[in-house]
Amino acid sequence: MATFEAIITSLEQLSIQPKTLSHDAVADNKAWIAALSTLPTEQPYHVTKTLILKPKTAKSAAATPVVVIALDATETNATALGKKLGLKDCRFANEDLLKDTFATTKDAVSPFALSNVADLSLIHLVVDTQLLALPATEVLAFHPGASDKTVFVTVDQLKAYLASLKKEFVDVDFKALAAAKPPAGGAPKAAPKAKKEAKKEVAAADDGHQMGIEYKKDVDFPKWYQQVLTKSEMLDYYDVSGCYILRPLAYNVWKEITNFFDGAITEMGVEDTYFPMFVSNRVLEREKDHIEGFAPEVAWVTKAGSSDLEEPIAIRPTSETVMYPYFAKWIRSHRDLPFRINQWCSVVRWEFKNPQPFLRTREFLWQEGHTAHLTLKDATSEVYEILDLYEKVYTDLLALPVVKGVKSEKERFAGGYFTTTVEGFIPTTGRAIQGGTSHCLGQNFSKMFDIVVEDPASDSNDPKKIHVWQNSWGLSTRTIGVMVMVHGDDKGLVLPPRVALTQAVVIPCGLTVKTSKADADKLYDACADLAKRLKKCGVKVKSDLRENYTPGFKFNHWEIRGTPLRIELGPKDIQQNQVTCVRRDTGARFTIPVEQLESGVQEALETIQHDMFVRAKAKRDESIIRVEQWEDFVPALNDKKLILMPWCDRMECEDDIKERSARTSNEGEEEDERAPSMGAKSLCNPFEQPTDKPIVPGVTKCVACGQDAKHYMLFGRSY
Amino acid sequence: MATFEAIITSLEQLSIQPKTLSHDAVADNKAWIAALSTLPTEQPYHVTKTLILKPKTAKSAAATPVVVIALDATETNATALGKKLGLKDCRFANEDLLKDTFATTKDAVSPFALSNVADLSLIHLVVDTQLLALPATEVLAFHPGASDKTVFVTVDQLKAYLASLKKEFVDVDFKALAAAKPPAGGAPKAAPKAKKEAKKEVAAADDGHQMGIEYKKDVDFPKWYQQVLTKSEMLDYYDVSGCYILRPLAYNVWKEITNFFDGAITEMGVEDTYFPMFVSNRVLEREKDHIEGFAPEVAWVTKAGSSDLEEPIAIRPTSETVMYPYFAKWIRSHRDLPFRINQWCSVVRWEFKNPQPFLRTREFLWQEGHTAHLTLKDATSEVYEILDLYEKVYTDLLALPVVKGVKSEKERFAGGYFTTTVEGFIPTTGRAIQGGTSHCLGQNFSKMFDIVVEDPASDSNDPKKIHVWQNSWGLSTRTIGVMVMVHGDDKGLVLPPRVALTQAVVIPCGLTVKTSKADADKLYDACADLAKRLKKCGVKVKSDLRENYTPGFKFNHWEIRGTPLRIELGPKDIQQNQVTCVRRDTGARFTIPVEQLESGVQEALETIQHDMFVRAKAKRDESIIRVEQWEDFVPALNDKKLILMPWCDRMECEDDIKERSARTSNEGEEEDERAPSMGAKSLCNPFEQPTDKPIVPGVTKCVACGQDAKHYMLFGRSY
Repeated sequence: MATFEAIITSLEQLSIQPKTLSHDAVADNKAWIAALSTLPTEQPYHVTKTLILKPKTAKSAAATPVVVIALDATETNATALGKKLGLKDCRFANEDLLKDTFATTKDAVSPFALSNVADLSLIHLVVDTQLLALPATEVLAFHPGASDKTVFVTVDQLKAYLASLKKEFVDVDFKALAAAKPPAGGAPKAAPKAKKEAKKEVAAADDGHQMGIEYKKDVDFPKWYQQVLTKSEMLDYYDVSGCYILRPLAYNVWKEITNFFDGAITEMGVEDTYFPMFVSNRVLEREKDHIEGFAPEVAWVTKAGSSDLEEPIAIRPTSETVMYPYFAKWIRSHRDLPFRINQWCSVVRWEFKNPQPFLRTREFLWQEGHTAHLTLKDATSEVYEILDLYEKVYTDLLALPVVKGVKSEKERFAGGYFTTTVEGFIPTTGRAIQGGTSHCLGQNFSKMFDIVVEDPASDSNDPKKIHVWQNSWGLSTRTIGVMVMVHGDDKGLVLPPRVALTQAVVIPCGLTVKTSKADADKLYDACADLAKRLKKCGVKVKSDLRENYTPGFKFNHWEIRGTPLRIELGPKDIQQNQVTCVRRDTGARFTIPVEQLESGVQEALETIQHDMFVRAKAKRDESIIRVEQWEDFVPALNDKKLILMPWCDRMECEDDIKERSARTSNEGEEEDERAPSMGAKSLCNPFEQPTDKPIVPGVTKCVACGQDAKHYMLFGRSY
Repeated sequence: MATFEAIITSLEQLSIQPKTLSHDAVADNKAWIAALSTLPTEQPYHVTKTLILKPKTAKSAAATPVVVIALDATETNATALGKKLGLKDCRFANEDLLKDTFATTKDAVSPFALSNVADLSLIHLVVDTQLLALPATEVLAFHPGASDKTVFVTVDQLKAYLASLKKEFVDVDFKALAAAKPPAGGAPKAAPKAKKEAKKEVAAADDGHQMGIEYKKDVDFPKWYQQVLTKSEMLDYYDVSGCYILRPLAYNVWKEITNFFDGAITEMGVEDTYFPMFVSNRVLEREKDHIEGFAPEVAWVTKAGSSDLEEPIAIRPTSETVMYPYFAKWIRSHRDLPFRINQWCSVVRWEFKNPQPFLRTREFLWQEGHTAHLTLKDATSEVYEILDLYEKVYTDLLALPVVKGVKSEKERFAGGYFTTTVEGFIPTTGRAIQGGTSHCLGQNFSKMFDIVVEDPASDSNDPKKIHVWQNSWGLSTRTIGVMVMVHGDDKGLVLPPRVALTQAVVIPCGLTVKTSKADADKLYDACADLAKRLKKCGVKVKSDLRENYTPGFKFNHWEIRGTPLRIELGPKDIQQNQVTCVRRDTGARFTIPVEQLESGVQEALETIQHDMFVRAKAKRDESIIRVEQWEDFVPALNDKKLILMPWCDRMECEDDIKERSARTSNEGEEEDERAPSMGAKSLCNPFEQPTDKPIVPGVTKCVACGQDAKHYMLFGRSY
């Protein structure tokens, strides 16, 4: 029996060093996928299947097995394949054939079993087109010779292995193969034109099926999230772990946020700059306290070309140490205050925890504002002004509610004076998420970096120096993750119109095999005309006039991508001088008279934006529970709620709350599944305190520890 | 005699490892500065001076020398200093005192000589406030104990050395000291108020003098360029060599370019994305030919926190290898074409040649567009469309003329099909500069990365695959350097209004010591009101109402910063219901009736923008010489001209031209001074060919080699 080890050895002889994993023995792909998903892997991989089929052969003839190497997701129809290859009755090979010809078992079939075949000329080798079309560096998972082991090789490496066998293979497009079948309950035998239409419809239906989100939001949230992001074409995975590609749909959200926020701060007098991404060791190390938290995650450049750098250089994790020596240089007088700059850039934090698109990535885009003021009062005023803008980003652009408040001493910025935050909420997991922070740094950094001005109130003959008061504030692409998680549904992404790359899509409907070309063209032209009108009045519209896809396919296509409004135009609509609209967020259908197209669509988009916010806010509001006794705390958390309760504002109590609200995690649970059992963090001391039962000093007690309560505090499990 | 080595040893004992340089012996700071400027140094440094003065002492008393440690640029007045310290007649110490007390010579005085002083209590130690105020990591140059050696220590290290002496020093603001002197030919002894005004005026005049550009554009272009950039507050130097800080004035130029260009390409259907900055080794190495040019300049991240990465990761020098594997994944069908994305980001190229702000930096901001098309025709069409946009960036935003054309085979993008370019010109050096490139990559990359679609023209039963045709196009912050170099003058920066952060500044004038507070306030209010009106109609305006600076100081302040229009308002203007305007570009003065303020200012700004372009174009046009015989080629180059001449389009001829037009460089010349003698490059084959003497195939000969000329080619020395 060819062993796993033997296969690894033969791969190594081809200079292929595959990564391997051990796991429970699995009997089929479903179990295998489940087993793999519990294990940490460095990068995404494609699960494969290797099928060994045997066509009907005369008793006297030698068997000519068919080996099919395919992606697990590809539907492989044995009969259709046999037909294509001119072989009859292809059925799965039995255990004897597997053992005799391939030296393997049913549970452990892989392409590498081909190394064991004595006479390869008797084998038909078939490889899935979808697999071959993957980029060379994509990773494939195989089960070579053992049901409790998996080996990972890249597409290129597999090709190299197959090439080493000197065995030609047939590249089969299983999708096309399936499409060649007549549709179930389909059109009667018809003219070639009808057949062509039918083929298109099936291809479309098949594509529709492949495109759908395969996981339900409430059932498998992590996989749902991944699929929504990739299938909507917001994001793609990348071969450097923790880094992701922001495709136009995602990048557009960031652009809209950028335009809004940059416009607002420019109006306030803040000026944009750009500092280098590199920080010298010496400068970074200067601020040991502040940088302590960041140090383990700093990425270091040590080489350029083939030479070592004299001194390693860091990539900024945040720019305080980069900028503040220059604040000291540039700020000479109180007349230089307030001094306010901002930059849009990316930062790098080489985290070792499981990365998650948008929420935890090693490189992310953000803005960081850094300002200096003469007085604490001036600084504080700006802290709140900026926080209000952050709130608007969420409420007005992303249609998401946030709670504004002050962070506890434990949770605030290390080295700062106080931190204000906007806290978001993900209902599906019942977890809060810090959405942006505006810090008052006090004078800590100006004392570290010696940023001083002459006190204008002091005598010019005996001038006193004062250290400036500083703020820093930042908002990142994490915002996009929150938006997807809250608004998305089982059909896919749902975008608020204000940040949608495409706000409305015009789709021609009602064309049948009976429609003449002239009528079809008229319909297409009418659709294009509608789109032109809408574009003119500022709506981001597209018209989907692709001739080879059915309306159903198109509906699916644009729904997955979260397009807020679908505008259908069919012969009936044309007759009635109207368009039929469908909202992505609710599915509601309504009509708009053609002459009111512009105002009707603009109104609809505004309504959608507003309604999405209202719904999200209602869900969030019902998820904040007032807790008056400790017994109710953990059950509320486990019920996916956030808690608002009187609190003593003591760090020891905060630590205690976290411990007492953590549950023992289930073994083998991935971090995100484990999240429901992590301890609660303090989220913020909300600016808006409850008025029905105000805190009475000395009377109201902290729900967690019984000491005097200072104010209401928001608690919850958090990202 | 204390030797250089002894001093180095004593510094090392303080854990200070200074960098040192040897050079010709120098007798004074001027010679020292000249000697240093010929040597390569890693980063900018401040030249210092250490003065040893001796006040008049009674013959019987011990000498109490004054040691002054200052920046070379600080004006140190010995008499004023003596007055401040209460010492009489401070003069430079003679050679005997230098030898006896400090064990040093006149040519080699440095603070470190203090280590040799037997009794420090007899020394007055004075340190320049300007020096102390520098950021701790700024580098200072000293001459310790040897006139042919320089040692470099940071401000922090100097402070540490002084602290080790346990000798207190006096922090003296020499600027204020100088200001305390009555102005030359100034006001007669007056009331305290007048004295205060006089003091302000002198301070202002002094500040004005300090602020000015100390080098003439035509005399010392490199130093002029550095000073314009730093004194205008466009840019600051940074402690990682080759990296610079873009301050708001510079960043605003890039913002305007971004807004214009992104708007235009979005209209064309290009979508913005963001790919990770990191590239895995494996992917980068894939394209050995393309990447060959970039490999020596790629920066590698090898560590995160304190652990080594499993595999080093590169920072993108350009994103072809990052993106194109995804093109292969995402482009499945000809219906996906044209596929057009763009990103705004920074790239890193760790060059080893002398860096220069904007023109050659290790990190720079740019946009890179990458597109795929079904046909060469479609691709080519876009190449020219983009090049036209690049031209507009220069002509319409930056008021700069460029020549559009095609690069020679030698100069085109490695691995591409053909490259088009916009070529700029810097009159002061007579050098061309590549301003932006739009490449057609052909099918080279789609073949490398397997980016294929089904040919829609082929039979669906026997589909043929075709490789897509690709383009890539990029424009960077180099644009800003060209703008500064062409438009700037001896007063400083000159900004085209379309990219100016501040387009107009309102300055109150005519206030004297006789003006009542009420009248002064009225004037300030009137200025603020003008600014408000202008802001309302979209002009980027500021009003400079700072009370402690003279109009002259303010004029200087805003002129250095390149502010296109100055609007003066004085009592006479108020009387005549007008404002007086002064153009930054020409200095021309004119008035605008107050009721026509908005239209008058907007018109003025448009005129300035237009005139700046016209002047730059005229200068550029007269700098392109038609050459008909080789003897005229090099003289024209040396006369700071570009050459347009019939050319054979052969690479060997191009190489030959480069050799023949290089001159032996003068020894010791820095690279930029050496530039005037470098060989000429081919710049482009201009789209606009001369019509007066068109090339006659087979008749017109190449001016360089005599073979048949194919077309006119533009040649020149280039950045």
